Amino acid sequence: MSALSYDAESDLRDRRRAVRELGAALRELTEAAVSTEVDAETLVEAAEQVRGLVPALSSARRERGQPPTVDDCEQPRRLYNPAAGPGNPIAPPMRVEIVDGIAIGTCTLGLAYEGPPSYVHGGISAMLLDQILGHAHAAANGKPGMTVKLSLRYRRPVPLTTPLRIVGRVVRRDGRCTYPVGTISTADDPNTVLVEAEGAFMVPNAEQNKRLFGELERIV
Amino acid sequence: MSALSYDAESDLRDRRRAVRELGAALRELTEAAVSTEVDAETLVEAAEQVRGLVPALSSARRERGQPPTVDDCEQPRRLYNPAAGPGNPIAPPMRVEIVDGIAIGTCTLGLAYEGPPSYVHGGISAMLLDQILGHAHAAANGKPGMTVKLSLRYRRPVPLTTPLRIVGRVVRRDGRCTYPVGTISTADDPNTVLVEAEGAFMVPNAEQNKRLFGELERIV
Repeated sequence: MSALSYDAESDLRDRRRAVRELGAALRELTEAAVSTEVDAETLVEAAEQVRGLVPALSSARRERGQPPTVDDCEQPRRLYNPAAGPGNPIAPPMRVEIVDGIAIGTCTLGLAYEGPPSYVHGGISAMLLDQILGHAHAAANGKPGMTVKLSLRYRRPVPLTTPLRIVGRVVRRDGRCTYPVGTISTADDPNTVLVEAEGAFMVPNAEQNKRLFGELERIV
Repeated sequence: MSALSYDAESDLRDRRRAVRELGAALRELTEAAVSTEVDAETLVEAAEQVRGLVPALSSARRERGQPPTVDDCEQPRRLYNPAAGPGNPIAPPMRVEIVDGIAIGTCTLGLAYEGPPSYVHGGISAMLLDQILGHAHAAANGKPGMTVKLSLRYRRPVPLTTPLRIVGRVVRRDGRCTYPVGTISTADDPNTVLVEAEGAFMVPNAEQNKRLFGELERIV
């Protein structure tokens, strides 16, 4: 039995679809903005038009501490996650699936993610690995965890505009903690490791949960 | 003597200012998009309007391997850097200054950077620290470097919508390599470390530069 009426469910489905659509459109615009070579006048005009779109979206909004109503407590996927959320323009987004307990992510990074010329920023690689290790942790533990440690070794530069494969798996578990490892490679050459990671993730205990999240209206 | 004529310099100045303006407008729109609670119809309409802005910016564009013409080879700051570039909607952006060889970054992260509810995503903290250690490396070495290793210890969660202070300094230097350390704290309580980092950064040698960047039209 659903807790929501048919109308409320249908409305939520529509809003989730629309959130993904707006996320995708904003990713296109971000990529156009960081790769454009147009003149100053065209840039200023675009900025004015972009600012003109803010009020309609801001007419109803949440603040920090109010989780988005489009998120589903029972779904691990959060629409606005900055690495994997399809509704967040910052997220590539990385698509993640769990296969036999192993988290497998795929994404292609555009010019917005550039660090050294034509390669991915080291911090973006770290973000993708943190996210995939978090998925591996959740698959092994059953509950989302928080990063305690993350160690990265950059072996080779990660190319932009190239399909990537990001893999994470838990190699040890100890109560509320897991110790996942992960790698980034290109989809075409999955055996050549570009960046590797080792992490420690922890599920907060009841006291920590209350201290960190107690003020939230609802924990997602 | 400048390599550019007065008109070309003035044009470049205008374009840089406009790139910053568009970046700022897109950051506002991104934050509005991830915190909106409007209905599906308004979201879909916004997505259409966003898509409508792409063609004007895409009428002249660079591809991977073509550095942006607004960047200045002699300036360490790159306008589209995903952590610190004011022209990149993904970047908070973190403002960075070097004081007595220490890199000091400041930024405030909105809801777009959320990991655990109401706190910063661990990967975003990693990105800011990677960036600040890179600035510390460049201040010590004189040349930009690439991340070889990055180790992060997450001591306390980093709050959203709160002014942050990100500090990096090199503790050891060995030829082309530096070993910087860094921390994130809130601006109000700079002595309480939230996240700490240790890194190893390296300036590529001539052979590596040729292999990694040889195909580029111009190295920034």
